[in-house]
Amino acid sequence: MPLIVQKYGGTSVANAARIKTVVARRIVARAASGDQLVVVVSAMGDTTDELIALARQVTDEPEARELDLLLSTGEIVSAALVAMALNHMGRPAVALSGSQAGIRTDPRHGKARIADLDPKRIRQELDADRIVIVAGFQGITEEMEITTLGRGASDTTAVALAAALKAERAEIYTDVEGIFNADPRIVPEATKFPEISYEEMLELAAYGAQVMHPRAVELGAVHHVRIYVASSFSDAPGTLIHGGPFMEQHNKVLGIAQDTDVARITIRGVPDRPGIAATLFEPLGEHGISVDTIVQNASVERLTDLTFTVSRSDLGRAMEIVKPVALEIDAPEVLADTHLAKVSIVGAGMTSAAGYAGRMFRTLFEAGINIELITTSEIRITCLIDEKQVRDAVRALHKAFELQEG
Amino acid sequence: MPLIVQKYGGTSVANAARIKTVVARRIVARAASGDQLVVVVSAMGDTTDELIALARQVTDEPEARELDLLLSTGEIVSAALVAMALNHMGRPAVALSGSQAGIRTDPRHGKARIADLDPKRIRQELDADRIVIVAGFQGITEEMEITTLGRGASDTTAVALAAALKAERAEIYTDVEGIFNADPRIVPEATKFPEISYEEMLELAAYGAQVMHPRAVELGAVHHVRIYVASSFSDAPGTLIHGGPFMEQHNKVLGIAQDTDVARITIRGVPDRPGIAATLFEPLGEHGISVDTIVQNASVERLTDLTFTVSRSDLGRAMEIVKPVALEIDAPEVLADTHLAKVSIVGAGMTSAAGYAGRMFRTLFEAGINIELITTSEIRITCLIDEKQVRDAVRALHKAFELQEG
Repeated sequence: MPLIVQKYGGTSVANAARIKTVVARRIVARAASGDQLVVVVSAMGDTTDELIALARQVTDEPEARELDLLLSTGEIVSAALVAMALNHMGRPAVALSGSQAGIRTDPRHGKARIADLDPKRIRQELDADRIVIVAGFQGITEEMEITTLGRGASDTTAVALAAALKAERAEIYTDVEGIFNADPRIVPEATKFPEISYEEMLELAAYGAQVMHPRAVELGAVHHVRIYVASSFSDAPGTLIHGGPFMEQHNKVLGIAQDTDVARITIRGVPDRPGIAATLFEPLGEHGISVDTIVQNASVERLTDLTFTVSRSDLGRAMEIVKPVALEIDAPEVLADTHLAKVSIVGAGMTSAAGYAGRMFRTLFEAGINIELITTSEIRITCLIDEKQVRDAVRALHKAFELQEG
Repeated sequence: MPLIVQKYGGTSVANAARIKTVVARRIVARAASGDQLVVVVSAMGDTTDELIALARQVTDEPEARELDLLLSTGEIVSAALVAMALNHMGRPAVALSGSQAGIRTDPRHGKARIADLDPKRIRQELDADRIVIVAGFQGITEEMEITTLGRGASDTTAVALAAALKAERAEIYTDVEGIFNADPRIVPEATKFPEISYEEMLELAAYGAQVMHPRAVELGAVHHVRIYVASSFSDAPGTLIHGGPFMEQHNKVLGIAQDTDVARITIRGVPDRPGIAATLFEPLGEHGISVDTIVQNASVERLTDLTFTVSRSDLGRAMEIVKPVALEIDAPEVLADTHLAKVSIVGAGMTSAAGYAGRMFRTLFEAGINIELITTSEIRITCLIDEKQVRDAVRALHKAFELQEG
């Protein structure tokens, strides 16, 4: 019997009515087709933000451990409610916390990684013909400490479960109809991919196509889990993310991505000597802060400026770590700003074929948009620009690279 | 170093401001005196009722297992917030779920009993000089299922922890200043006991003095845990509940108790033969439904009417269990009503000394209150009356038995 892992996001389980009429109904219909189902759910609507706000009413700096314990309750609530709704519809179901579902993680609170997954309990429940509802986003350490996997990480829970259970595929149900070549809220004529490769999805996700969490896509790529992204609220066909050989190397811009969750840190006057980068970035990694887009300017008189970006929620902690290190290495100044955003063009063979970078920079220039920083990868060119100009930039690039339908 | 277990109820942790200014401040002050502290917390304000309402939006009959998983989140949220508040004030603290605190229960969802308590983790945290905040009301079974101990059972968690940890005493902080000889909201001249015995407190609690959960008092009596009940919101001295020999057998009414959480079930025409009561009450017990006040009328033509009361939240399930049994034993009719309430006079040697029952019945009669049912114990006389007349009854009895101050 084919096993499917589904995941429903916060908008899909936002209230009791949606849990009944959208999520439970969809699950029952799918179960009727004969598939075994494991369903991962996010917290209801803005629950996670509300819990964080509650913590901040108590303290500016909640400990990561206590915050995890607090936040883990959000997904448990929605899992219990979805199981109740299914039982009410006569379809036996059982809700499991991350801990009950056997999701073991490392102890990095707030950003834990799944270390191991023991699917014994889930298998027992499936064998008893019950639909298994799993609270996403959370796990438990060997020391019985509750952890969370970071924002949006219910996708990761779903893909990890699909891998451990050798599921047919992971289905991510969300409030958009799939993966588009630009954000359809910004570019109405954006078109949807029926299929996309892990690598391309990863670049789109990492650079801001917020439909799916990039870690989940990575995990899917590593474990060959086919991921289907579609809307909870419509029956429109979604996008299948897989590693199949269907993508031609078309040397063409695949899509436009944007990301406003960007904070930039610049360290001025860094001595240009070996080991400095490690001295700076190792402690950030140890504190679980992801750094992307590192740029080091050419050295002038053996001094250089080092710029990198982190997510805005990590800025405070990153600055606390970087400032003493900067002092230590005699760098005179550390600057932070949060008014920037990333806009990227993504596609196979982007940088190997000439002309894309130039066309991107010209398009932004003609739209009156200043470029603060540029980075590239094999399949992506990214510009850091003023956050206020993101929508204009995405629209202009979508047009310039002829991504409109037809 | 003396170890104290404290418990703060839902009103005390109703919002972030109270957690900081009432609960955390009290805990810090107490810790400063050198005591080791384990603190049990209830869910914030009306959280439990709100979660139940949420479940009822999804289904009329939530499964007890899923409901427990849902409800257990309420106390975890408040435990995490209290720990954050303490850490914020510079006093290291750690929040533990019932499961992390080692509270093992039997698998009766919604009404689980504590089977075992492994205080290893709590001891570790205390040894590391951390204040331990424990989510009340919940535990975990051997099968790793989350259970709850029933409404108001955070008191039970606190007393059980005090017993397992051999604490100096359990302190129950609530929104009243201790145990009074009648509900001070109904009788303004009610007086507070500085001390009271377990037995008397138990009768007061079981018959509606809603300050403390009766199971917690029972547990305290069995394990000789001294229980101090006081207000979170004032420094007025509270009431110490213990088993000491200080209570004289004064043959005097100690207090008036009332309880409106009463539903009455009457089975008409029950055949008067051996074993019938067991046939009826065993299945109720198996489903974890507590029955109190059982009355069987005198038999007429070998048929009798059997009346008993349950809490209102159990009425639906009790009726489902009783109806088929009634059919089986040829009892023609089962009646339920929920408009009644209990009012009791409580005191040592109540029924052995003449005159109390008579004075109670006369007092109610003169207040125009009809008595639907009477039961008595060694230290209590209870009348079932119309719920609308409870306040009048309590006031009249308080006056008749001269319980006013002075």
